[in-house]
Amino acid sequence: MQKQVIDLNADMGESFGPWHLGDGNDPSIMPLLSSANIATGFHAGDPATMASSVALAKQFGVAVGAHPGYRDLVGFGRRTIQASVQELVQDAIYQIGALQAFLQLAGLRMQHVKPHGALYMAMAASEDLSLAFLQALQGLSPALAVYCMAGSATHLAAKQLGVRAICEFFADRDYDASGSIVFTRQMGRLCPTTVADKVMLACRQGLVDTVDGQRIPIAFDSICIHSDTPGALQLIRTTRNRLLEAGITIRAPQGQSAA
Amino acid sequence: MQKQVIDLNADMGESFGPWHLGDGNDPSIMPLLSSANIATGFHAGDPATMASSVALAKQFGVAVGAHPGYRDLVGFGRRTIQASVQELVQDAIYQIGALQAFLQLAGLRMQHVKPHGALYMAMAASEDLSLAFLQALQGLSPALAVYCMAGSATHLAAKQLGVRAICEFFADRDYDASGSIVFTRQMGRLCPTTVADKVMLACRQGLVDTVDGQRIPIAFDSICIHSDTPGALQLIRTTRNRLLEAGITIRAPQGQSAA
Amino acid sequence: MQKQVIDLNADMGESFGPWHLGDGNDPSIMPLLSSANIATGFHAGDPATMASSVALAKQFGVAVGAHPGYRDLVGFGRRTIQASVQELVQDAIYQIGALQAFLQLAGLRMQHVKPHGALYMAMAASEDLSLAFLQALQGLSPALAVYCMAGSATHLAAKQLGVRAICEFFADRDYDASGSIVFTRQMGRLCPTTVADKVMLACRQGLVDTVDGQRIPIAFDSICIHSDTPGALQLIRTTRNRLLEAGITIRAPQGQSAA
Amino acid sequence: MQKQVIDLNADMGESFGPWHLGDGNDPSIMPLLSSANIATGFHAGDPATMASSVALAKQFGVAVGAHPGYRDLVGFGRRTIQASVQELVQDAIYQIGALQAFLQLAGLRMQHVKPHGALYMAMAASEDLSLAFLQALQGLSPALAVYCMAGSATHLAAKQLGVRAICEFFADRDYDASGSIVFTRQMGRLCPTTVADKVMLACRQGLVDTVDGQRIPIAFDSICIHSDTPGALQLIRTTRNRLLEAGITIRAPQGQSAA
Repeated sequence: MQKQVIDLNADMGESFGPWHLGDGNDPSIMPLLSSANIATGFHAGDPATMASSVALAKQFGVAVGAHPGYRDLVGFGRRTIQASVQELVQDAIYQIGALQAFLQLAGLRMQHVKPHGALYMAMAASEDLSLAFLQALQGLSPALAVYCMAGSATHLAAKQLGVRAICEFFADRDYDASGSIVFTRQMGRLCPTTVADKVMLACRQGLVDTVDGQRIPIAFDSICIHSDTPGALQLIRTTRNRLLEAGITIRAPQGQSAA
Repeated sequence: MQKQVIDLNADMGESFGPWHLGDGNDPSIMPLLSSANIATGFHAGDPATMASSVALAKQFGVAVGAHPGYRDLVGFGRRTIQASVQELVQDAIYQIGALQAFLQLAGLRMQHVKPHGALYMAMAASEDLSLAFLQALQGLSPALAVYCMAGSATHLAAKQLGVRAICEFFADRDYDASGSIVFTRQMGRLCPTTVADKVMLACRQGLVDTVDGQRIPIAFDSICIHSDTPGALQLIRTTRNRLLEAGITIRAPQGQSAA
Repeated sequence: MQKQVIDLNADMGESFGPWHLGDGNDPSIMPLLSSANIATGFHAGDPATMASSVALAKQFGVAVGAHPGYRDLVGFGRRTIQASVQELVQDAIYQIGALQAFLQLAGLRMQHVKPHGALYMAMAASEDLSLAFLQALQGLSPALAVYCMAGSATHLAAKQLGVRAICEFFADRDYDASGSIVFTRQMGRLCPTTVADKVMLACRQGLVDTVDGQRIPIAFDSICIHSDTPGALQLIRTTRNRLLEAGITIRAPQGQSAA
Repeated sequence: MQKQVIDLNADMGESFGPWHLGDGNDPSIMPLLSSANIATGFHAGDPATMASSVALAKQFGVAVGAHPGYRDLVGFGRRTIQASVQELVQDAIYQIGALQAFLQLAGLRMQHVKPHGALYMAMAASEDLSLAFLQALQGLSPALAVYCMAGSATHLAAKQLGVRAICEFFADRDYDASGSIVFTRQMGRLCPTTVADKVMLACRQGLVDTVDGQRIPIAFDSICIHSDTPGALQLIRTTRNRLLEAGITIRAPQGQSAA
């Protein structure tokens, strides 16, 4: 059963001070998305970057989520830190609130929160962390959704608490037989056509090929392509075009359509 | 004409990670205040500290303000950074939003914003910076007040924009003949009685003695004693007692009474 | 077989910017030590603090070691970060070099390196990390010693490479049955007499009582008391006096005597 | 009187964590230089980057200098911080020592120190800061040279103390009538031919055109082109080729020849 509507998300605002990420860039990629995860200063992003990312999202009608990470700029939030659940949740509250202020000044509403990098993986594996994190989200706003992997601890905790979960398909990551992605700190260059084919298989048949040669079912509401994957702009553009050609509408969970 | 009601504010939450400031501490000082300026992570403060500072303020009914500073932990925000107006305002928005999230989770409303240290002085001297800063405050919430010195650029900008200004009397700082405080990066120990006498002269007669031997008029709505001044707890306790003995009510601008 | 000579080490220079650690302080504790581990800026310490710690060590003839940690100020280097071996070794080289410059200006030689907190524990458990770390030490100076736990991976790697290992007895930490300490992020207050008794049992009989009620042998060349343990000054003073009363000389591995 | 030999320097290692600067990059630019100023972690650079920059410099026989800056990653060291002379000098000692360790492991000697960005300008304007900074350099190694502008306070202090000064010509910056460069936080794209022409005028006739239409004499020993100026690789390549075509040898002050 083919999907008729899908969300397309990417991480935005992952600059810091004088530095920018990736060979694509935010002004090129933002118009192609329906949802943007904006870095909130701990793994990437700074106030100036957050302000301009929010402005870009507003300009192109892209739904905005907070993208909090571990407090580890030099490691880009891709190194697990053995912090307590309470520390991690308080770090996330801080970051979400910071982005919230920029959204408020821009007259926008925050659609979702998506934990970044190693924090995303730590939450996927920890019920305690996911529950505490999502309870904080509910306290901040009952309407906030969380982006996660289907079947992860985050997904289960969201169901348990009644938080809206948006399950993701990672077009630029490898899957293992458990349906989880193979976490990596750095990506090589991928073939846009291969990525688009992978997305189409997932959208049309709900299947993904794993690193060990299996083809397994995958459930998702959103396609994620990382903007720091080398060649990200072309990956996103190719994937987006294939989706549109197939008659699939690209639309954010909160309703904005990027198509 | 003696004041009947006055606000008593101090900086709270100026810990960072394993480190705490001052020989007094937040749990001792918080109950003595009517308003608390909570550090927001750039010059001091971290998410865990912010959460516990907000909890303390709630417990004792103390009104809360955000205390954003320059992004300079090692210099404790007491070194001017030649950043652009836009950078400084965006830095403040980030910090205010971060605290706002902790207040929201605690069911509290932010009363005010008070820039910290060298940023306070930079704003006091710059109309451009003060106007841009206060316009951002208005965008975040029209009800937010700003703490400032009477006659400063910040005060004038607040009047111009219609932002509520709470003028401060600095009980633990020296004044010069212009009515401005003599900025310092580090304080020595002060005599509690002298500080209380200075406050009483200001409250009863609206006067302050300057470093060059003059006695000049001073206008204010709030008394500030810095919690990192050596012996701060005793300074605040002595001052507070003298105010109460004189029949002066200690009450936050938004209406909470700490007396 | 009683020890005649022992080294007494503590962590020094764990201030950062305006913040100081512990109820003792460096000028009080430094004269009581034979070896000082000076924080090098990643978990604590800043250039100004390093300069004054080196000056204090010089004044009191205390041997100096570098105390590099994880890049995690807010967590005080007590949270493991899943960084690569190469990253951790490069981080340590950076920190060791930074301290080396202050020692050179003071006309002192670096005696040792002691990894801090969670990095100490990660090295104790990892042969790969210990080997790579100690190979870097040898490259920097063949005379550098490493502080470690007897029997740890660090100890074994030091033996293998021919790096001088100074084994430590942790007077203010609990031991488990494996002879390893029970790692903690925060300590409660300890009884100085109990700590001194524990040290004397170790020095006289080479034994330590474990948390599960055993008494096991322990080998060591140096006694460590953490300066951020509450009441550290009294713990160190009491322990030091007991050692001196027992006729044990307190002397650094490189030969300085603090007795 | 035409120069027969000139040094060509650029800033290297200005990455941080996942971020890289400029459209050229270190592996492309390094082979074209005779001297490299390697960022030391406060305005840019991290231990991993420093290690690889040192390896690159060794591979291509490029002389290495430390490039310490203000502690301001987000501002890239291009914002003046009102720190004390002592703080700034201690910050520089820390950074120089850190790089020194990587050089020692690579078997290289540090040729020079070049303060970065706003610190370079602050030193150029301050005799006190320059003297204190250069006295620290002498303490670290009498052989260390300092890069500076001819006639600046740094230049005069170097002469006074007997520190070797390498005066720079900034090929990608505007000059004012005083012979000082017009400081900027961000550069636009420049024409490679224009830059090379400017360099040739300086090398052949010792003259530079100022922003206010004058042509003034300029003394220098080294040509600097910033690697974060857009199009830096082409600017450096074009300038280098013009120098070589004119029979000018490109050689570091300490003697390595990059030609």
